[in-house]
Amino acid sequence: MSANTLSASEAAARIAAGELQSEVLVRACLDRIARREPDVRAWAHVDAEGALRAAREADKVQQCNARPLGPLHGIPIGIKDVVGTADLRTEYNSEIYLGHRTHADAAAVTILRAAGAVIIGKTETVEFAAWGGRVAPTGNPHDLLRTPGGSSSGSAAAVADCMVPIAVGTQTGGSLIRPASYCGVVGFKPTFGTVSLEGVKRYATTLDTLGWYARSVEDVALLARVFDVSDEPTPKPTLSETLRIGACRTPYWDASHSETKAALAEAKRRLSSAGAVVTDLELGADFSALNEHRQTVMWAEGRVNFLDLQRAAPDKISPGIRKSMERISNKRLCAALDQAAALRPVFDALAGDFDAVIAPSAPGEAPIGLGSTGDSIFNGLWTLLHVPCINLPGLTGPQGLPVGIQLVGGRYTDASLLAVARTVAGLLRRKV
Amino acid sequence: MSANTLSASEAAARIAAGELQSEVLVRACLDRIARREPDVRAWAHVDAEGALRAAREADKVQQCNARPLGPLHGIPIGIKDVVGTADLRTEYNSEIYLGHRTHADAAAVTILRAAGAVIIGKTETVEFAAWGGRVAPTGNPHDLLRTPGGSSSGSAAAVADCMVPIAVGTQTGGSLIRPASYCGVVGFKPTFGTVSLEGVKRYATTLDTLGWYARSVEDVALLARVFDVSDEPTPKPTLSETLRIGACRTPYWDASHSETKAALAEAKRRLSSAGAVVTDLELGADFSALNEHRQTVMWAEGRVNFLDLQRAAPDKISPGIRKSMERISNKRLCAALDQAAALRPVFDALAGDFDAVIAPSAPGEAPIGLGSTGDSIFNGLWTLLHVPCINLPGLTGPQGLPVGIQLVGGRYTDASLLAVARTVAGLLRRKV
Repeated sequence: MSANTLSASEAAARIAAGELQSEVLVRACLDRIARREPDVRAWAHVDAEGALRAAREADKVQQCNARPLGPLHGIPIGIKDVVGTADLRTEYNSEIYLGHRTHADAAAVTILRAAGAVIIGKTETVEFAAWGGRVAPTGNPHDLLRTPGGSSSGSAAAVADCMVPIAVGTQTGGSLIRPASYCGVVGFKPTFGTVSLEGVKRYATTLDTLGWYARSVEDVALLARVFDVSDEPTPKPTLSETLRIGACRTPYWDASHSETKAALAEAKRRLSSAGAVVTDLELGADFSALNEHRQTVMWAEGRVNFLDLQRAAPDKISPGIRKSMERISNKRLCAALDQAAALRPVFDALAGDFDAVIAPSAPGEAPIGLGSTGDSIFNGLWTLLHVPCINLPGLTGPQGLPVGIQLVGGRYTDASLLAVARTVAGLLRRKV
Repeated sequence: MSANTLSASEAAARIAAGELQSEVLVRACLDRIARREPDVRAWAHVDAEGALRAAREADKVQQCNARPLGPLHGIPIGIKDVVGTADLRTEYNSEIYLGHRTHADAAAVTILRAAGAVIIGKTETVEFAAWGGRVAPTGNPHDLLRTPGGSSSGSAAAVADCMVPIAVGTQTGGSLIRPASYCGVVGFKPTFGTVSLEGVKRYATTLDTLGWYARSVEDVALLARVFDVSDEPTPKPTLSETLRIGACRTPYWDASHSETKAALAEAKRRLSSAGAVVTDLELGADFSALNEHRQTVMWAEGRVNFLDLQRAAPDKISPGIRKSMERISNKRLCAALDQAAALRPVFDALAGDFDAVIAPSAPGEAPIGLGSTGDSIFNGLWTLLHVPCINLPGLTGPQGLPVGIQLVGGRYTDASLLAVARTVAGLLRRKV
């Protein structure tokens, strides 16, 4: 087994035990990228030299028996190209920022480096991670003619293709969870506001959230610890203690394809068989407007956050983004903000009756074609509710492609949700 | 009269009419800075050469009868040193960032330059504009032994001292309005979320707001137009149409000194004499917790936004800021966020009964000493409610120092509030 297929947790353990060198791991990832990148196109920039240098430094620390740099000592990671990096270009997939350098690390990159992570490169993104932006050239590793989803296209594809064990993404609509579902990886969007966005291109202030991709729940849990994302100490439920699961079709169930309907049913069946108590959770009628509210907030806030580009370089913004910048009435924006804010504690209370809520991650398998990144209809409401979401792979659709299920919790229950996810992930991955 | 004492609106009109050159205006400002800066210490960096170059470029455009750059054509402005500038150091008054350059303009600076503004330099700030941060060395131009307030200390002082007609500040607690009150200038904090914070050092995601200082309401209204901060078109009330004013002591009235109590009474008297209908507005008991909620939100969010510094350079953060980074329970944070969100539409509705609400801007005159920047007790609640606030000077206390009154409106009523402020400002400035 080549080192590039290891999870971050496994690799970190081997490096700590002196059984694996970071340089070997990084070279395995770079080899995989060299072989697959011409097809997958997950990377905006790869910094082989810088990554190898950082890996050798990590190995030197290890060889000298010095204190490890941190829990990600020598572990390679990909960074979505809307997140600033001091030593690599940051271009946001925008014509305006061709060759652009931020000259400084985003807060998230500082935290990753301080934990010992090795930055492999910047992953492809939809322009500014924004609705209507230019799409990434990335193909879905499971079928290159299909989208990997977006806007975190490159990060999800790179992890799915074992080019890196972990990667950073962001979500304003469904940009973390949908690509995770399409690519068959674990994707985690923590509670809104728990991770700094300093140095990340801003889109919608009330929605933007930074999160992570990995191939195991353990790895996103490791990242959550690195970022100090934790909730109050609570008992971590396990199946032997009878897991209580709410199954939520969401108000948008009609948009789900047959494979998503089947996946939710299968998840319920497996959970029940394993001894969990699965109860349908129907959201009240007032939740139905959340996706529309999310779009209102996203467009109105996007207009504010892109005003500088509109003033300085209007011709270099994609027509789709420009279109979304039409003024939205403040009355409508206020209503959207206030109704969402009122529903947050309502959902927290509903979720509090369960150890986790399961819901569709996407309408179905990844659609054919790279021109669209798919539909965020099963993501926007959770983003607006600020709740933690984690996509779990394992189930597949009629084309044999991944169909994810997401676990959702109340705000600030991230650590508990990750504990439950570990159990549920095993059930979904089980071969039947 | 020297050009540096002109308002931005007057100077812009004269430049447009060919009666004033931007270079003359900028030189007058630089002369004033040269004369007064050793005492006032408002500036972290002054870019005389860059400002004169930009001014000459603006003058060339004007001389060629070309289209003006924008509504701030050739107008000098100061930028708080938590806002990134491409051509000037950005140091946040932090040991970590000595000599730091962002290499890029913050969105607000891009918008100002696109409007024709000339960046004179960076103004002194409290470290990271954060609670507990190292204070600015700036003195209050009215009495150099007193604080100008903070954290936008340099911007307020520079405008008050006629070093620049306008300046950029930010507010997370009371960092725009309190310095405006202490220094006797107009300060405007627009509705939360109406101005991009891209490139501004983040502190508390739910609270941080960028705003402006000037010596007239017309000037902050001009800046609000430049930044596209506007509400639904509404009739602009004038006194002849009977202005309806709510007088709000806030739940913190006991913290006001005699001069603030007298100033609110005097404002009410002048408004009534001029024909306004002034009604006392008492906020319900649930509003009393807002300042405590504001501190909870500020500290919890500050902890997230400073985590990178805590990881990379913990010894170089001021002890005061480090102290504020102790973990706050997520239950308490959620309660604070939710109760604030629930009260926003309640206050909007209360404010909707009036053309504007008047309230204290600060407990009293600027306190003696530069070690503390004063108390934000009359600001935090409005910041957390996300409502627009404008400090109006004119009244004074027992030491002859400025005592401001702020006008507050419902969210997104910025343009209407500015229209009312124009009338009220005249009444407060009238000699009696």
